[in-house]
Amino acid sequence: MAANQPDPSRLISVQSHVVTGYVGNRSATFPLQLLGWDVDVVNTTQLSNHTGYGRFTGMRLDAAHLENIFAGLEQNGLLRHSRMLSGYTPSPAALTAVKTFVQKLKRINSKLIYLMDPVMGDMGRGFYVDQGCLPIYRDLLPYATIVCPNQFEAQALADKEITDLDSLAGVLQAIHQRGVPHVVITSVDLKESDLNLIGTSAKNGAMVLVGSSNEGQQRPWFIQSPEVEGYFSGVGDLFSALLVGRFQLQTSNSSQEKYEEEPKEGGAPDTDLSLAAEKAVAGLQGVLSKTSEAIAASEPLPTQAEREAAHIDDTQFRVEVMRRRELKVVQSRQAIETPVVQYKARWMS
Amino acid sequence: MAANQPDPSRLISVQSHVVTGYVGNRSATFPLQLLGWDVDVVNTTQLSNHTGYGRFTGMRLDAAHLENIFAGLEQNGLLRHSRMLSGYTPSPAALTAVKTFVQKLKRINSKLIYLMDPVMGDMGRGFYVDQGCLPIYRDLLPYATIVCPNQFEAQALADKEITDLDSLAGVLQAIHQRGVPHVVITSVDLKESDLNLIGTSAKNGAMVLVGSSNEGQQRPWFIQSPEVEGYFSGVGDLFSALLVGRFQLQTSNSSQEKYEEEPKEGGAPDTDLSLAAEKAVAGLQGVLSKTSEAIAASEPLPTQAEREAAHIDDTQFRVEVMRRRELKVVQSRQAIETPVVQYKARWMS
Repeated sequence: MAANQPDPSRLISVQSHVVTGYVGNRSATFPLQLLGWDVDVVNTTQLSNHTGYGRFTGMRLDAAHLENIFAGLEQNGLLRHSRMLSGYTPSPAALTAVKTFVQKLKRINSKLIYLMDPVMGDMGRGFYVDQGCLPIYRDLLPYATIVCPNQFEAQALADKEITDLDSLAGVLQAIHQRGVPHVVITSVDLKESDLNLIGTSAKNGAMVLVGSSNEGQQRPWFIQSPEVEGYFSGVGDLFSALLVGRFQLQTSNSSQEKYEEEPKEGGAPDTDLSLAAEKAVAGLQGVLSKTSEAIAASEPLPTQAEREAAHIDDTQFRVEVMRRRELKVVQSRQAIETPVVQYKARWMS
Repeated sequence: MAANQPDPSRLISVQSHVVTGYVGNRSATFPLQLLGWDVDVVNTTQLSNHTGYGRFTGMRLDAAHLENIFAGLEQNGLLRHSRMLSGYTPSPAALTAVKTFVQKLKRINSKLIYLMDPVMGDMGRGFYVDQGCLPIYRDLLPYATIVCPNQFEAQALADKEITDLDSLAGVLQAIHQRGVPHVVITSVDLKESDLNLIGTSAKNGAMVLVGSSNEGQQRPWFIQSPEVEGYFSGVGDLFSALLVGRFQLQTSNSSQEKYEEEPKEGGAPDTDLSLAAEKAVAGLQGVLSKTSEAIAASEPLPTQAEREAAHIDDTQFRVEVMRRRELKVVQSRQAIETPVVQYKARWMS
């Protein structure tokens, strides 16, 4: 492969690194490697564990370091990426360095597939990064092939609230209009009446993911899957890795088989995005299922009485909870490599 | 798993990180994960590419950062490792932080299996790390289960030269006497007359690896394998990962089959170390073979005339060579997971 020439199997991922556990690049790299990607790994942090533990050590890497790394890659002819994935970036300055890098990669390879996960916050907590990241993520939208915000991030990018199906469609449209061909909102909170309108119910599973491609007459679709009880860190990072790793890699053959075997739900054709998202959801469900099994088999958390007797304070207790909830990524190879799609995309009418 | 309690599937690897390419943790992590290890990854650097390119950017992480990371892991009950692997460490101060950490892990888990790769230099080049690392590596020997120096590093640790079979045995013995049960010298340069004494010849393959366990009446053994032409970075890091990942995991069943199927060469029984080393060499040969195929299929290097015409200087040319020689780790899953042992251990008489 000549200097700075695109290699169809090379992907670069710019995310956080933790020594123990599976968030950011630690959640993305092994699954992408299992899918056959030669992954270049730029770490934006080195922390002992993810910040959800409440207590962690280590460092964030600054914009100057990231710029230096990107310059070294370019000078050595190592900008050979056909895909890029970005996630948590620790500051507006670091995110600006990522933006400049993406612009460079796009100049080298106009066909670059870039999945941007605009990690900023969530519905329960609001912003957990510097709000100065928002305008930079907006600037990045025209360079992204796929964005996969959660509801909070989608609303922030579009500067609109999602309150019903109409406003959901409005947010998707607003993001497309900023130049992104493919959008997946990883979790949308819809009222029962709206769920009924799309032919389902909260009883069928609490997680509703919505996807939309701005191509031809395509309509938004959704995938509903069971919510696994409790909070797991790194789930969004794993999903975005599986999505960018699988996007456009469903062969026409397997897609053909699918058409023949099963009637379409909602009447619209599968898309590259919906097929990749179905497999990404299936892989994620497999990892969550292994993780739940491991939690059930692990030493139980101390009871309130035991916590008092052993002087386990709230900080320590939170650490105990988080340690048990680390995703079982290495143990879930089968689900990642050969996911069984149980939850299929359904098109909105 | 309770706080700081050993987990039989958890391993911690402390090595360098490069964004592109496969040395240090980038060479070790994916193979160990393929073998089922839940790998905790402490990076001692973040560089654009390995230093063999001659040109690189990024940073080394200092002792204070490493101490901070280790403290965070301990405080959060994350010292659950049953194995540890260490490789390139950028300074005596950083290596001292690693030493203190190993001592801590051994206090928590006296059965810790620790493979120390004392990365210091090689026969052609001499020391390529600060020589102040040597006494610290010597201090670490009593904590190591396995050390896998190359000839230069073995000589430095033992403070003896290897010139023939007797002095080789002396170096192995000297390292055992410093408290290490298992030693693998990854490459020894022996004269044809010495090779003849161990029943072989340089014609059978230029790479001679020597292993020794300080248990009972065990004698040293060697594995001879073909040298793949040219220099590849990360080979030692991949070997040490495969060795620590496979050590003591050969089931008695498969070992039994082996006894039944084939007469022993050299008349001594297989050991945990020799069985693991045979599979590690086989895995490594598989990766090197895939790498050679990829080089043969890649764009040829510019000729001298082309270099002059295109103003490719020596620095740039070296980069061109190195980029093509990156190990094909992700593409070699089969060789890593199910290596076919072609080169077997032979015992010295």
